[in-house]
Amino acid sequence: MLSLCPAFHYMRISYPSLLKEAKKQRKEAKLIKQLEKQKKEEDAERAKLEQSQNRKGRAYTVSVALPGSVLDNAQSTELRTYLAGQIARACVVFCVDEIVVFDEQGKIVEGEFKGVGKKGHACIQLARILQYLECPQYLRKWFFPKHQDLQYAGLLNPLDSPHHMRIDEESEYREGIVLDRPTKQGKGSLVNCGMRKDVRIDKQLQSGLRVTVQLNKTQDEESKINKGVVVAPHVPRTEGGLYWGYSVRLASCLSAVFTESPYKDGYDLTIGTSERGSNMDQSPLSPFKHLLIVFGGLQGLEASVDADQNLEVTDPSVLFDLYLNTCPGQGSRTIRTEEAILISMAGLKPKITAAFSDVSNGS
Amino acid sequence: MLSLCPAFHYMRISYPSLLKEAKKQRKEAKLIKQLEKQKKEEDAERAKLEQSQNRKGRAYTVSVALPGSVLDNAQSTELRTYLAGQIARACVVFCVDEIVVFDEQGKIVEGEFKGVGKKGHACIQLARILQYLECPQYLRKWFFPKHQDLQYAGLLNPLDSPHHMRIDEESEYREGIVLDRPTKQGKGSLVNCGMRKDVRIDKQLQSGLRVTVQLNKTQDEESKINKGVVVAPHVPRTEGGLYWGYSVRLASCLSAVFTESPYKDGYDLTIGTSERGSNMDQSPLSPFKHLLIVFGGLQGLEASVDADQNLEVTDPSVLFDLYLNTCPGQGSRTIRTEEAILISMAGLKPKITAAFSDVSNGS
Ligand SMILES: C[S@@+](CC[C@H](N)C(=O)[O-])C[C@H]1O[C@@H](n2cnc3c(N)ncnc32)[C@H](O)[C@@H]1O
Ligand SMILES: C[S@@+](CC[C@H](N)C(=O)[O-])C[C@H]1O[C@@H](n2cnc3c(N)ncnc32)[C@H](O)[C@@H]1O
Repeated sequence: MLSLCPAFHYMRISYPSLLKEAKKQRKEAKLIKQLEKQKKEEDAERAKLEQSQNRKGRAYTVSVALPGSVLDNAQSTELRTYLAGQIARACVVFCVDEIVVFDEQGKIVEGEFKGVGKKGHACIQLARILQYLECPQYLRKWFFPKHQDLQYAGLLNPLDSPHHMRIDEESEYREGIVLDRPTKQGKGSLVNCGMRKDVRIDKQLQSGLRVTVQLNKTQDEESKINKGVVVAPHVPRTEGGLYWGYSVRLASCLSAVFTESPYKDGYDLTIGTSERGSNMDQSPLSPFKHLLIVFGGLQGLEASVDADQNLEVTDPSVLFDLYLNTCPGQGSRTIRTEEAILISMAGLKPKITAAFSDVSNGS
Repeated sequence: MLSLCPAFHYMRISYPSLLKEAKKQRKEAKLIKQLEKQKKEEDAERAKLEQSQNRKGRAYTVSVALPGSVLDNAQSTELRTYLAGQIARACVVFCVDEIVVFDEQGKIVEGEFKGVGKKGHACIQLARILQYLECPQYLRKWFFPKHQDLQYAGLLNPLDSPHHMRIDEESEYREGIVLDRPTKQGKGSLVNCGMRKDVRIDKQLQSGLRVTVQLNKTQDEESKINKGVVVAPHVPRTEGGLYWGYSVRLASCLSAVFTESPYKDGYDLTIGTSERGSNMDQSPLSPFKHLLIVFGGLQGLEASVDADQNLEVTDPSVLFDLYLNTCPGQGSRTIRTEEAILISMAGLKPKITAAFSDVSNGS
């Protein structure tokens, strides 16, 4: 049975409703006050305020999908690991929120990917290394027991993303693990957030869960513990405007990348990549909620389309809103997938920025 | 004494004057004829012709410079080699014509870099691997004898650039090596161009030279040899519009990257890269003849500026026409040099295209 890391399937819990309501109320009160004070500059001020609010949070998400088989192109076990690390870093540099690893051979499997087994091991290994790298260092000992997929983890370059805090770094948000300590009735659980003190949260949660904690603005310096509340993992992004790592999802075939989207209404802008796509330079992007960018392996996306029993088409381009050549005039006959991610994201980034620059930054 | 590969220092020879003159005359005659024939559409036709001529060749060049010390960031000897390969591929994907490897520690040395020695070995190893990869496979046995710098060359991903021909591939141009065969008075040397037949060129040249050969349009199928003429290595680019690999240059310090340019008037557009640069999205490029893009190592370009005895400044930005952040909003605290090359070139590419799109494509 596949279970990359038991805690992972439910490690990111979500208590958005209560928290959001309270926040919203506070924000609104503040807004009204400000407007009363500065009646003279009312219009100008409101515009400014709206802009600054919008600038803070990021409402949209970016997902990247690629076949696990890319690992099979590596020429040694060390390079296999290194390649997984290159993919993780490429996604982090461009603030990717979700990485979907799909099985290019399109073996439809029931339940928890039991069938991917040996042949599809590249998918699982890639997913595992991606998760390992995404996990803040201070939490890895809990979530990633020794495993042969991680044998060469020492060769991996760190992601150095904002949610990988150093021990004394100050931050409104932190990732943590719920500790196995007795908690009194009415008191919340203790969480290790990689700080000198543990954090008492507002809820009692099962130990071993990975949680996103919002630390209280003021802490009692004398106290042996800090205080905070559990928030949904998207809050650092949607409210703090921070990049907060990526989630990893396995898909048993290309079509499952689309159909098993974690977003209620799926992806509303999808991009396929290929040297046979249309020239990216001539393709502006429209604003979106959830963008998906799909890469192929050694044989391109055609191979994944051919193998997918759910797809009757043969031409991958019909599956996507846009099918783009992201490197027109390439000087090499083939671009490797790990290179294509950096190149494509670098080319798409200014288009994403432009898409949101005049429509309230995606909020 | 440093001599990466003895033949390399003079392997690309240039006989531009005679050849160019003849070509020019032929072209002019053709032009006049056509114009006489089609007097009615004179203006329209001339514009069209000009456009198509311009579209074929590429007059401008792109150079990339980086410190050899980047290799020292690799975590194993295998990865050191792999990293060099990543850099080579990044440059080929974006049709870079020259790679300059500079010594970040700025040890000014006399003559042939004798002083770079052990400490600067990263520079030499990087340059050697770059040259090895650029050399068409069929020529490597001559130009690259066994060397410990190339011990892990088997791990390198091929460049797959257009001048790496397969044996039966048809092409107007080919790279070759002048063979050590007796040639009669008045007859040119024989060259191995990686084809089934050797090529008789128009000149007698020293054996062991690497040359660029333009094959005659029609060949005598019966003959045991093909015929061609030696051309300057830039001809496939300037006249054929082909990407034809890169040359490699060592520089003993950052300032030597600029001052030892192989182009008569140096680089006329220089770009420094840094996360502290200005946002690339807001910087269009003006047309240029010779573009230079400089990357820093682990410590950024500041380290190279500090160590360079020829430079009195401390702020690298003053050395360049543009000092650009090519990845605004990066999700990782640091971008590695090998990643920065792909990202920066992907971002600059459409700007380069745009710079030449309305000014006759750089010719
Ligand atoms: C090794 S390439 C696939 C090559 C395959 N022979 C083909 O023709 O599609 C791996 C992946 O990199 C991406 N890729 C390569 N070149 C690209 C380009 N010029 N534009 C966009 N994506 C590219 C695509 O996602 C592709 O499936
Ligand atoms: C590891 S980084 C250097 C980091 C160094 N600490 C600094 O602050 O400059 C290596 C090189 O990658 C390039 N680079 C990294 N991030 C960049 C960015 N956002 N924009 C442009 N170039 C960047 C620069 O050439 C830099 O010198």
